[in-house]
Amino acid sequence: MDKGTFDFSSFIAERVPPATAATTTGWDPRGRPKYDFGTGFPDPDSFPAEGLHEALGQALKERGREMVLYPDPKGFLEFREFIVDKLHRERGIVVEPDQVLVTGGSGVALAIFTQLLSNPGDTLITEEFTYPGTLSVMRNLKANIVGVSTDEEGMRPDVLDETIRNLKSKGIHPKFVYTIPSFQNPTGTDMSVQRRHDILTVAQNHGVPIFEDDAYEDLRFEGDRTPSIHSYDDTKMTLYCGTFSKIIAPGMRIAYLVVPPELISQTNFLNWGRPTSHFAALATYYYLRDHMDEHVAEVNDILLAKRDTMIGALGEFMDPKVVYNRPSGGMYLWAQLPEGISVASVAGKARERGVAYLPGPNFSPTGEGENYLRLCFGYADHEGIRDGIALLSQIFTEEGLLA
Amino acid sequence: MDKGTFDFSSFIAERVPPATAATTTGWDPRGRPKYDFGTGFPDPDSFPAEGLHEALGQALKERGREMVLYPDPKGFLEFREFIVDKLHRERGIVVEPDQVLVTGGSGVALAIFTQLLSNPGDTLITEEFTYPGTLSVMRNLKANIVGVSTDEEGMRPDVLDETIRNLKSKGIHPKFVYTIPSFQNPTGTDMSVQRRHDILTVAQNHGVPIFEDDAYEDLRFEGDRTPSIHSYDDTKMTLYCGTFSKIIAPGMRIAYLVVPPELISQTNFLNWGRPTSHFAALATYYYLRDHMDEHVAEVNDILLAKRDTMIGALGEFMDPKVVYNRPSGGMYLWAQLPEGISVASVAGKARERGVAYLPGPNFSPTGEGENYLRLCFGYADHEGIRDGIALLSQIFTEEGLLA
Repeated sequence: MDKGTFDFSSFIAERVPPATAATTTGWDPRGRPKYDFGTGFPDPDSFPAEGLHEALGQALKERGREMVLYPDPKGFLEFREFIVDKLHRERGIVVEPDQVLVTGGSGVALAIFTQLLSNPGDTLITEEFTYPGTLSVMRNLKANIVGVSTDEEGMRPDVLDETIRNLKSKGIHPKFVYTIPSFQNPTGTDMSVQRRHDILTVAQNHGVPIFEDDAYEDLRFEGDRTPSIHSYDDTKMTLYCGTFSKIIAPGMRIAYLVVPPELISQTNFLNWGRPTSHFAALATYYYLRDHMDEHVAEVNDILLAKRDTMIGALGEFMDPKVVYNRPSGGMYLWAQLPEGISVASVAGKARERGVAYLPGPNFSPTGEGENYLRLCFGYADHEGIRDGIALLSQIFTEEGLLA
Repeated sequence: MDKGTFDFSSFIAERVPPATAATTTGWDPRGRPKYDFGTGFPDPDSFPAEGLHEALGQALKERGREMVLYPDPKGFLEFREFIVDKLHRERGIVVEPDQVLVTGGSGVALAIFTQLLSNPGDTLITEEFTYPGTLSVMRNLKANIVGVSTDEEGMRPDVLDETIRNLKSKGIHPKFVYTIPSFQNPTGTDMSVQRRHDILTVAQNHGVPIFEDDAYEDLRFEGDRTPSIHSYDDTKMTLYCGTFSKIIAPGMRIAYLVVPPELISQTNFLNWGRPTSHFAALATYYYLRDHMDEHVAEVNDILLAKRDTMIGALGEFMDPKVVYNRPSGGMYLWAQLPEGISVASVAGKARERGVAYLPGPNFSPTGEGENYLRLCFGYADHEGIRDGIALLSQIFTEEGLLA
């Protein structure tokens, strides 16, 4: 008897979007573009494979037997103590290990804070261009996202103030201000100490918490560290997250968040069932404990040189109508074509021809920024950066963007 | 100016339960009991630390550069192909790699299927005693959980049929039947081929999908493999999950699920932002590819011997009023004291005195089973099993459970 194939369609929960025909996630290592300036991948040659392997060997010798235990969902204590110490020394943050939650990558950290504070329909504030992963999380949770314009120091406090006032006049109290103060993704802007104070003051005056995403501060290759917004926050309204994806590798899937004591039980709840791999966490901890400073210095030397190569290649090959920044950290250039030119419309064709970049609308809550593109200088080697930028220039010309 | 500490209380989303004073997750490796029969930990001596370390070294040599890429959230293709092949050979399951999703442990797999199919208030069916992690997921998602009684072969098809009929007569269509057919947790029951067919038939007749949790089949240390329910399901209504926590270690955080093609895009969506560590996945794949059969055989030899040690110790030290099963696989004994005796009420005191076990109510949707306990024989060594059971017997007597 053929009973026929079961039809699940009436069984799917309301939280789940409609099915699509996509059976893959679009990941295909063999289909990757020759010149990849798209995703924020670090330099593959500086991935510390040997150092991590050696560190893991030592960790397994000393603590291998604990691999058979279910790991503490918060991350193991010594690792959280290490993070507390790092945050204190480098970011001016003073917290207890219990306030730290190690997560399986930044995606989990972003989701936890957004799930913690936003109901469907709630309003969340970001920079006018921001990390697409954050936008995805917010959209999946059906948030209303409002962008605030930026200048060379990042989010503008006067515009933030006006934005919140306007929302409040409509009876809307935003749930948080999400900001990337250091080497903002994608614009590369870096808040001064004064700017951090000013943004914090506006948020405090309006009673709107700050969600500080500090993913790129470790990649400061010129100038001195700027303390985090969290370090200035005497009201303890700042939620903070950092990651090891940029200084080790995204493949580890290890990030962390920091919360005020009264929110610990609830962030622990939201992380339930998705603890970090203890195997990856042990290797990361043992490696960084002994090698962090030298490794970060090496990574930053490489990024500085690559930034200069990309800026040099743009100067040599690209039409001067394309303007861009010169960031002191991070791994992105944010480039702008003249108003009215859609670099977004050419992204698919450029990728087919071997050059990937991310166009402005990917970063915009409202899908604006057709004439912008983000170029990651972290992944390609120097020759690849030069050749890729030369090809990109050629594509822009041949596609009639720059006549 | 002291602005005071920010009060988050009116900002918390509705999906989040009230805050508690707990700042830890209760994990404390130093506070662990001397004789731990509580959690389902594998044998620490058979954790393949050296094998994994060597496998990882080879993986990083061959594919280390891909660590800087964001890993495919589904798990990398070769790993999913390996799982497809394992499922085909060992479980009679015929699926494509795109139907496999590698997750960061079983908790994620359980959450994905439950999030996929259940709205708050929906009814889900389980065995009358089942895995506490599953109950947590279901409760967090505000499901109504209905247990079905079992016999020595696991869930009873006649009771399942009656349960679904009763629910339907009240206008309730259950969203799925969650079952652990092989070495059920905690009861250790193992469904025969006929029982698997019978449960499937009831589910098919009522149009209620099956969620088959196959966590323990790899740990069959006596007898031949029984094919999965999934393998008999010509209607493709069975959702399936497996794990590497039992044959490698929970600290890896690697499990997998299998879905019908039309649900792939939605399970991928629900896994968004929580991919497995590629570092841990590479090590697991390289190790199992070359060593799975010999390693699983070694693990099962160890578990068989430990089962016999625990049964021997119970026979030697424990009052014969305590009865228990003799499983051919898995890592648990399910023990029963006479009706009316609350072994649950003594669990805290026993743990203080050095012996941990999990009492029946932890496994029950309705908190029943005061006179039951689950004893894991996977973790303690032979001497520890004997000494721990002797002490447990003494505690039961001294606490007046067995006069």
